[in-house]
Amino acid sequence: MDLVRRIDRAAGEFLLFALTPPRLATARERVQEIADATMARLRPLDLDGLILYDIDDEAARNPAQRPFPFSPTLDPANYLADNFTSWQTPVIVYRAVGKYAPSELRTWLAAQDPARVMTVLVGASSSKIDTMTSLADAQALRRDVNPGLPLGGVAIPERHSRRDDEHLRLLAKQDAGCRFFVTQVVYDVNAAKNLVSDYHYECVARGRTPVPVVFTFSVCGSLKTLDFLQWLGVDVPRWMENDLKHAADTLEASYQLALAAATELMAYCRGLGVPFGINVESVSIRREEIEASVRLAEQLRTEIKG
Amino acid sequence: MDLVRRIDRAAGEFLLFALTPPRLATARERVQEIADATMARLRPLDLDGLILYDIDDEAARNPAQRPFPFSPTLDPANYLADNFTSWQTPVIVYRAVGKYAPSELRTWLAAQDPARVMTVLVGASSSKIDTMTSLADAQALRRDVNPGLPLGGVAIPERHSRRDDEHLRLLAKQDAGCRFFVTQVVYDVNAAKNLVSDYHYECVARGRTPVPVVFTFSVCGSLKTLDFLQWLGVDVPRWMENDLKHAADTLEASYQLALAAATELMAYCRGLGVPFGINVESVSIRREEIEASVRLAEQLRTEIKG
Repeated sequence: MDLVRRIDRAAGEFLLFALTPPRLATARERVQEIADATMARLRPLDLDGLILYDIDDEAARNPAQRPFPFSPTLDPANYLADNFTSWQTPVIVYRAVGKYAPSELRTWLAAQDPARVMTVLVGASSSKIDTMTSLADAQALRRDVNPGLPLGGVAIPERHSRRDDEHLRLLAKQDAGCRFFVTQVVYDVNAAKNLVSDYHYECVARGRTPVPVVFTFSVCGSLKTLDFLQWLGVDVPRWMENDLKHAADTLEASYQLALAAATELMAYCRGLGVPFGINVESVSIRREEIEASVRLAEQLRTEIKG
Repeated sequence: MDLVRRIDRAAGEFLLFALTPPRLATARERVQEIADATMARLRPLDLDGLILYDIDDEAARNPAQRPFPFSPTLDPANYLADNFTSWQTPVIVYRAVGKYAPSELRTWLAAQDPARVMTVLVGASSSKIDTMTSLADAQALRRDVNPGLPLGGVAIPERHSRRDDEHLRLLAKQDAGCRFFVTQVVYDVNAAKNLVSDYHYECVARGRTPVPVVFTFSVCGSLKTLDFLQWLGVDVPRWMENDLKHAADTLEASYQLALAAATELMAYCRGLGVPFGINVESVSIRREEIEASVRLAEQLRTEIKG
């Protein structure tokens, strides 16, 4: 079943792969080369869909210094339109809505083909940021100009660990039109299980149907990447952090940890009956990390029933 | 290999079963009947050892009302001496040291046969309690009067979740003579992994050999037992609490959760190379809960390599 129909029917299981567009400063011909190489690498994976992230500085999120300097990237909407024309599956385009004027978002939303594009609208990472469009306004724009465009939202298990109300936020986002959710990178499986569990039982209590929750996994090839994930707000359980810090091969250790975590979550969701997807994210631009991400998606493809 | 030699060599893997002695008010003949029935039930399990708990009121631990009223139980030292004479394996007798005068502890410690008895000395559950003997004094008494008597200590993953220093407490207890540790009931596997991981890497950093960590599991046949566990300070992850509350059969659900948790921890400890034991505790006096505990021990026996 095609991803659009799965989302429409709130049905799992499916596999996505998430990319960050190249840096804004990349030469135009080089951008297409990167896109072509990426598509060639991903085609054998039999993905159900692709995610293109919309990167924001997020400096306001965390007063600590960003482990990697922020480098603006191409607009994922343009990257898709200009460089991924030959890609076959639906593509989920993220929109960090605060970066765009309402008119700009409206034009983009209106122009998208619901059979090929979905969008995840993301609010600001901190209330301290000046935003051009709020999440609620962006959600309303989609309803106005292209209600058939499948909408997703972000789900943050870490926020559930702190406030115990992320499942209620998910249901509120569902009321605002969200038909699926995507987590940030999951290292803390327990936090993800807590969120899914509360979401499931709240759906049961309200007589609502749960929509697919897409869990994101990635490999981590260096301790600096680990620092960066933590800076971004990803909770890494102490034992995983220890294992990664002491591993002879950090990349391989993180691959095994991600595989085990994904497998555990998949079994848990199946047991509960919550539809789910798996998203493998390529965090780094280092060749061996990209290859390990592809290997992770390849392995998870064999475990996904769908 | 016999449990005494395993502990002496800091070697896993082994299986224990933990009992609470009958209530103090039990008629004398009835006590022996209970002990005989218990031994008959446990003999087929091929246990490496038995644990006898020393129950304390612990009212000072938690201002909330105790879900079950406190009912004093027989002294485990007496229960062992009077009623378990025909039991074959070594027995680990807990001593809630604050309940006893130093002279009383000294006499008991001096009289124990290190080939048959071990002890776990437990300090007060709250600093607000008046104690007759402190943990440090009790440890010193053992060193003085029976240094060959194998000593264990308690390990509390939940405390590690709050303070991040339980691994240092374990090493300090090791310095005070502890040759093994026993956790309270584990529901939060992640917390237990965090503690074992920090303990392992701290041992490596200091060139110390880890001693066996014994993880305790139990079944939970009712939501009142679950309340009681939480009152006692056991962290139950939200998803487990949800699953237990919504299970058609709480006891069977808790059996499956305990089995999965134990299996996960065993695999994790093997990967790290930390020696471990498994302890199955029978919390309740309800027949079906006791039988499920025995079934859990039976199943875990097949998974323990030792």
